[in-house]
Amino acid sequence: MNRQDVTDQIIQAKVKKGLKWTYVATKVGLSKEWVTAGCLGQMAFTPQQAATVAEAFDLSDEARLWLQEAPYKGSLPSDVPTDPLIHRFYELINVYGSTFKALIHEEFGDGIMSAIDFKMDLQREPDPAGDRVSITMSGKFLPYKTY
Amino acid sequence: MNRQDVTDQIIQAKVKKGLKWTYVATKVGLSKEWVTAGCLGQMAFTPQQAATVAEAFDLSDEARLWLQEAPYKGSLPSDVPTDPLIHRFYELINVYGSTFKALIHEEFGDGIMSAIDFKMDLQREPDPAGDRVSITMSGKFLPYKTY
Amino acid sequence: MNRQDVTDQIIQAKVKKGLKWTYVATKVGLSKEWVTAGCLGQMAFTPQQAATVAEAFDLSDEARLWLQEAPYKGSLPSDVPTDPLIHRFYELINVYGSTFKALIHEEFGDGIMSAIDFKMDLQREPDPAGDRVSITMSGKFLPYKTY
Amino acid sequence: MNRQDVTDQIIQAKVKKGLKWTYVATKVGLSKEWVTAGCLGQMAFTPQQAATVAEAFDLSDEARLWLQEAPYKGSLPSDVPTDPLIHRFYELINVYGSTFKALIHEEFGDGIMSAIDFKMDLQREPDPAGDRVSITMSGKFLPYKTY
Amino acid sequence: MNRQDVTDQIIQAKVKKGLKWTYVATKVGLSKEWVTAGCLGQMAFTPQQAATVAEAFDLSDEARLWLQEAPYKGSLPSDVPTDPLIHRFYELINVYGSTFKALIHEEFGDGIMSAIDFKMDLQREPDPAGDRVSITMSGKFLPYKTY
Amino acid sequence: MNRQDVTDQIIQAKVKKGLKWTYVATKVGLSKEWVTAGCLGQMAFTPQQAATVAEAFDLSDEARLWLQEAPYKGSLPSDVPTDPLIHRFYELINVYGSTFKALIHEEFGDGIMSAIDFKMDLQREPDPAGDRVSITMSGKFLPYKTY
Amino acid sequence: MNRQDVTDQIIQAKVKKGLKWTYVATKVGLSKEWVTAGCLGQMAFTPQQAATVAEAFDLSDEARLWLQEAPYKGSLPSDVPTDPLIHRFYELINVYGSTFKALIHEEFGDGIMSAIDFKMDLQREPDPAGDRVSITMSGKFLPYKTY
Amino acid sequence: MNRQDVTDQIIQAKVKKGLKWTYVATKVGLSKEWVTAGCLGQMAFTPQQAATVAEAFDLSDEARLWLQEAPYKGSLPSDVPTDPLIHRFYELINVYGSTFKALIHEEFGDGIMSAIDFKMDLQREPDPAGDRVSITMSGKFLPYKTY
Amino acid sequence: MNRQDVTDQIIQAKVKKGLKWTYVATKVGLSKEWVTAGCLGQMAFTPQQAATVAEAFDLSDEARLWLQEAPYKGSLPSDVPTDPLIHRFYELINVYGSTFKALIHEEFGDGIMSAIDFKMDLQREPDPAGDRVSITMSGKFLPYKTY
Amino acid sequence: MNRQDVTDQIIQAKVKKGLKWTYVATKVGLSKEWVTAGCLGQMAFTPQQAATVAEAFDLSDEARLWLQEAPYKGSLPSDVPTDPLIHRFYELINVYGSTFKALIHEEFGDGIMSAIDFKMDLQREPDPAGDRVSITMSGKFLPYKTY
Repeated sequence: MNRQDVTDQIIQAKVKKGLKWTYVATKVGLSKEWVTAGCLGQMAFTPQQAATVAEAFDLSDEARLWLQEAPYKGSLPSDVPTDPLIHRFYELINVYGSTFKALIHEEFGDGIMSAIDFKMDLQREPDPAGDRVSITMSGKFLPYKTY
Repeated sequence: MNRQDVTDQIIQAKVKKGLKWTYVATKVGLSKEWVTAGCLGQMAFTPQQAATVAEAFDLSDEARLWLQEAPYKGSLPSDVPTDPLIHRFYELINVYGSTFKALIHEEFGDGIMSAIDFKMDLQREPDPAGDRVSITMSGKFLPYKTY
Repeated sequence: MNRQDVTDQIIQAKVKKGLKWTYVATKVGLSKEWVTAGCLGQMAFTPQQAATVAEAFDLSDEARLWLQEAPYKGSLPSDVPTDPLIHRFYELINVYGSTFKALIHEEFGDGIMSAIDFKMDLQREPDPAGDRVSITMSGKFLPYKTY
Repeated sequence: MNRQDVTDQIIQAKVKKGLKWTYVATKVGLSKEWVTAGCLGQMAFTPQQAATVAEAFDLSDEARLWLQEAPYKGSLPSDVPTDPLIHRFYELINVYGSTFKALIHEEFGDGIMSAIDFKMDLQREPDPAGDRVSITMSGKFLPYKTY
Repeated sequence: MNRQDVTDQIIQAKVKKGLKWTYVATKVGLSKEWVTAGCLGQMAFTPQQAATVAEAFDLSDEARLWLQEAPYKGSLPSDVPTDPLIHRFYELINVYGSTFKALIHEEFGDGIMSAIDFKMDLQREPDPAGDRVSITMSGKFLPYKTY
Repeated sequence: MNRQDVTDQIIQAKVKKGLKWTYVATKVGLSKEWVTAGCLGQMAFTPQQAATVAEAFDLSDEARLWLQEAPYKGSLPSDVPTDPLIHRFYELINVYGSTFKALIHEEFGDGIMSAIDFKMDLQREPDPAGDRVSITMSGKFLPYKTY
Repeated sequence: MNRQDVTDQIIQAKVKKGLKWTYVATKVGLSKEWVTAGCLGQMAFTPQQAATVAEAFDLSDEARLWLQEAPYKGSLPSDVPTDPLIHRFYELINVYGSTFKALIHEEFGDGIMSAIDFKMDLQREPDPAGDRVSITMSGKFLPYKTY
Repeated sequence: MNRQDVTDQIIQAKVKKGLKWTYVATKVGLSKEWVTAGCLGQMAFTPQQAATVAEAFDLSDEARLWLQEAPYKGSLPSDVPTDPLIHRFYELINVYGSTFKALIHEEFGDGIMSAIDFKMDLQREPDPAGDRVSITMSGKFLPYKTY
Repeated sequence: MNRQDVTDQIIQAKVKKGLKWTYVATKVGLSKEWVTAGCLGQMAFTPQQAATVAEAFDLSDEARLWLQEAPYKGSLPSDVPTDPLIHRFYELINVYGSTFKALIHEEFGDGIMSAIDFKMDLQREPDPAGDRVSITMSGKFLPYKTY
Repeated sequence: MNRQDVTDQIIQAKVKKGLKWTYVATKVGLSKEWVTAGCLGQMAFTPQQAATVAEAFDLSDEARLWLQEAPYKGSLPSDVPTDPLIHRFYELINVYGSTFKALIHEEFGDGIMSAIDFKMDLQREPDPAGDRVSITMSGKFLPYKTY
């Protein structure tokens, strides 16, 4: 058994039991974005969080221990995603990547937006022309240090 | 001369004249995100917008015409970006891509977030622990049609 | 079990039982193009559609549930397809890709043809010089929004 | 000078003179799809066609000769297209490639759709919910020969 | 079971039973080139041919059915073959590819040599300086159609 | 100036002067296959052959010297060729590569067909169903030595 | 002119004038590691630092302005470095990457070592068995935030 | 069983038994960096070291033998690491690789830092602004020999 | 069972039984270089050699038959080897590849060194400054034939 | 001007002046292998050696200075070489790489053959069956250090 096996068991249990990610997130007591990422093998849970997740998905004791290990992150099977939904985000980086860079440097100077000290919120935005997906990302700006 | 040459001329003029992207965006009368993407060769301008951009950067008449053509999009020199700022966004897709997919499907069903009918807002978010970069993306949800 | 396993079971059952895709499509009541794509793991079925498919291919209850999940799409094992039939379509993009782009922009302005709000019809076109494959694609034009 | 230079000159002349592909196609007397592909360096023109194209774009005699050579085909700078419009077609192959294969084999047996004995028609399809791009492809079916 | 499994079973049976490809081809009544390609998972057999192959290699009924399906073609594990024998053919394309193109266009005009309406004959060519491998390929020339 | 420049000059001169590869080959006194490969930068000429080629294409003295150097071989811009004519040969290796290997080993034992002690003949094969391209390759079999 | 041109001018001036990186670093008043990275196009200088660098290498006014822009970072021409010195560092990541990950997670929990809030010191370490290169890296630990 | 299986067994045993790498390193009597690398399949152990490791993780006799074989090194699943922690080190090579090269050559002349006669020390560096990861690498300088 | 399985069984038996490659080579009666390559799946054995190898490693009858088949050669999992020992040879080709080419052409004219009619000898070279690995390669020169 | 330009000038001068690598090596007073590698941009020369090389090829003063800089090494345009002569060496690594590794580890234990403390000798080996290329490589064995 490895962490990928645990992710597979979670997805299979979710299909069989008809669970929702938002339901599991509520039980864990954190955002649906972070909890889903953790269930999909991208985050490490605390022992108590792992117990909640393991109970929700009927996982074994060994699986519960794996949930507490920092995983080898990266959830996509290829450099360029083939799935249309995920590819749209990759396309945004291709089209807007230099824009992100230009505007962040204009506002903050040389540095990056942290992808670690980071949070995200994904919402449905009702719109008469068709509902919209709204994603708000917030990451700490980290300036390059001179030394 | 091709569109890449126009982008190069814009960046060089910006360095020489000390312009800000936000200043050019105000003159064009649209968001800084969209105008910067257009200046960096990712969007097509209307004749009037192109005239404003050409004036701001002292571009030739031929360059002004190129700004009105739909460009071959894609602003990065490699599949996996080497620039640390842009790589953080690529990393977010790697870590959170399956989460985006899981949550959007849970909320909306099978489909995608449009990267075309899309808008974006990038702001500085003051924070005592260090200011944050805040990016809000909003794209229309497009469901897969059955037929 | 995952969605790939369900696709494998469907193909094996089709070989064993000698079913036709068009027969299954008729039972589902939708086009042969969309139903075949769904059976090959590219679309999500409604509960009722899934029941019909599961019955046609003698699938288990768990497989039937998987058919209702939005799958990770992408049905080819490499960036450049090795199968000659599928490669011909890739070749068409290589040869005609810039033509598609030039003509669509000339007719519609900057934007894309949707691959989501999309339908397709594949027919045999009798021809004395050898029958032809005729494929009609129709996708909504989505213009880039300025903001 | 090589064929790529001729393509560059054509695009630059088109921008400067404000020509339309459909206008040039009418002068050549063939479909806009084939003529545009030829102008973009994917097809070889006859001497008379080349003369017409050269006149339309004010090309030199040497450029006119290049238009009559069979070019090294392939119009995209990378295996996976970065331009969103062209990528949608690549995505269609990823999502529907196995479906194309399944349905063509069901209807015709083992073989391919020719990409050489092939024609294409691209039209605007008016639609109250937003106009659509309609593309009809027709290629001769070529069965694998046994020997 | 899938087509790759059938290929594996055929190779194992061939090793165990000490069969020759030429013997199987004779039983099928077609060329050794086409029959071997089919046994290695690149061609679809008719029911009668499949029965002969299945008998020769002691295959199961399900395997016999798989032999009649048009397979996903492509018999090499990487873009650039690592096996020295197969690499020599790839090297010939690298060294002579532009020559093939130049001479075929000079003789036939713009078009291709079909890889579908194609046959091949591989023979030992006795030579006092060391026997030679002689391969004759014959493919129909397909000219690009204008339309 | 390097060898690639010489190849470019040869192709440009050929277009301007309307020469045929077969004409140049006759002047050199060798096969059209080998001479064309040499002109396209894949073979080294003797001083006398180089003088003939230089005269045919009006090349400079320096270019003539370059023709006598053993070039860095490889005439294609990518691992998988995008040009349809050349790709058909790559496809043949993908589909028939394992067959080449199986039949050559069955006939000769472990070893390769030389791509160096090699000759090739490309002919038009008249056929009422459409003329065919016929290519005969002959390479010395080289057995793996044990030691 | 772009940033890469400035880097090229700096290296050429360094060769011609026989300057040392450590000399320039002393003039700028910062570490040799950071200043060299900046001169090689990886860091943005302040106006005063840029003036010092421009003077040391006799750069033009335009080059001086480019030094103050945040560059597109990444100093290597391929994913896997071919230069033996730089490849040794890549090899260390291949061999020790999972060890870095295991030990940092054991000591700090899930998170990363910052490559932005980072400093480095490279020294000669005299050793009778042959002097050693000693590199000390120090980066802030950034824990993954839950939210 | 192969060496990868042994690594998997070690990680699973570590999760189940709650062991620390530093504890195992102490038992082996070497640095935590080298021992962890060995446990993760990158180094060969002596018989005595292997016995200690096997006892700590309850490994079989066969696994103990495998620990003494020189393994095929390389611990990452892709050229560019997707895991954020490991990617930061890859990013450092991209940003600082040319700097490493410039400074080492300035100090030592042409040659490399050995990755074999190499040692490493990873420590927590307490810091009021947030603790830091400190890594000291020391490798023998190896000059290129002339001959 | 396939040839890779036989290689795996040989390596496992070697670990369990503590055999040396040189011992097996002596029993086979050929060089250690060729016999090891054969055991690692790169060469085909004669029936008698295969019997000796099978006996040494306690292989089954089926495995013994596989040893007599010409294998699909290529023993590395990636284009650029990650293992430091093997990578050093790849590095030598990168650094000295153009030198090999220049010197062999200067001495022999256009052609190659055969990798088939080839032998190799690997020896320990005692040296007070540290023992050396000495490898002598000898391959027949094969000149390009004109025709 | 950069180091690649110097290499290009050397090759062009060599073609024009008809020099031999062995002649230049004799003038420099070192082996033909090392001097050729240096001339092809892979090694750094001392001031005196650089003066000799510059005189032999009529290089400028700036070029002479570049010859003394440690270059970015790597002389091949792609990961897998397309030139048949150089590819044979790559093929040897693919076929014999695991054998090199197995035999060196059996003889020396875990470690590598240095590619830095390395020398090479390339000779013509007369042989009645056709002359052979003989290459002797000698590199210091470097054992992995434990710490």
